[in-house]
Amino acid sequence: MHFNLKESIEILERTPKALEHYLSGLSEAWLLGNEGEGTWNVTEVVEHLIQAEKHNWIPRMEMILQEGEGKPFPPFDRFSHLQQVHKQTIKQQLFEFNSIRAENIDTLQKLIDSEVYLEKTGSHPEFGTVKLRELLSAWVVHDLTHTAQIVRVMAERYRTDVGPWMEYLGILKKK
Amino acid sequence: MHFNLKESIEILERTPKALEHYLSGLSEAWLLGNEGEGTWNVTEVVEHLIQAEKHNWIPRMEMILQEGEGKPFPPFDRFSHLQQVHKQTIKQQLFEFNSIRAENIDTLQKLIDSEVYLEKTGSHPEFGTVKLRELLSAWVVHDLTHTAQIVRVMAERYRTDVGPWMEYLGILKKK
Repeated sequence: MHFNLKESIEILERTPKALEHYLSGLSEAWLLGNEGEGTWNVTEVVEHLIQAEKHNWIPRMEMILQEGEGKPFPPFDRFSHLQQVHKQTIKQQLFEFNSIRAENIDTLQKLIDSEVYLEKTGSHPEFGTVKLRELLSAWVVHDLTHTAQIVRVMAERYRTDVGPWMEYLGILKKK
Repeated sequence: MHFNLKESIEILERTPKALEHYLSGLSEAWLLGNEGEGTWNVTEVVEHLIQAEKHNWIPRMEMILQEGEGKPFPPFDRFSHLQQVHKQTIKQQLFEFNSIRAENIDTLQKLIDSEVYLEKTGSHPEFGTVKLRELLSAWVVHDLTHTAQIVRVMAERYRTDVGPWMEYLGILKKK
């Protein structure tokens, strides 16, 4: 086990900033391509990250602290962002992700002022008993998995363009 | 085929900046962990990116333009960074990657002032005939594949910490 609150916050505070520097000003071709039917493009991934900030991590953390295992978390709809009617520009999305993440880190730091809280448990609708430290670890790795997805979706666009270099470019290997 | 010089440069100029915002100031625990025996940690990946800027992309582009298929590219040692004696801090590495990338984009823009050049060919020591547009596409996807590797290596650290969330975190799926 490696979880450490300070080190986790290092990742949580960097993800939206790094994505802002990576994605702002990119041509639509990079932002709107996907990996085929039913897969997400880059803007959809960022929208999903925003939805998770609003409805997943902090509300669940608060439920663990307030309710313990007494009441299961409401399910988080991982596809809710696909129903959005008002589409934002990538710049607006990244601004929103940065703002809400900063607020959420602030809430996290206020609520978890002692390591003792990390062992508190809640009830996940599918997994059953989960610990706060697992929820927070998943929040960090969720950032990393979707950052990897963003670059993988962009790489897909040049799949045939790289010609024989395909062999050395692991990101293009079919799963 | 989707290759476009302007759009490729968008990625090439953003990678070192995004990595700077992502990795600067991170705890050593994130920078020095790897995925097991014989795999690279984050600082080794950044060092490999620097080596490729020095010895791979631009020298090969120049060989295509100057020699065509007359002379094969010298092989690029993909493990040369592991022999480095003077280790730099991550901050120094990222500064070097940003500087050399900026120079290389400048060289690229000076040398490729017409789409015509993209069809020029060279001789790869393993692949045989390759086109300049394939080399440039591979340069872009090389950035993306190593960015994905960096976040995957960091995610590895929390493999067991996420508990049952493992199921939803694709980055932790064993290849």
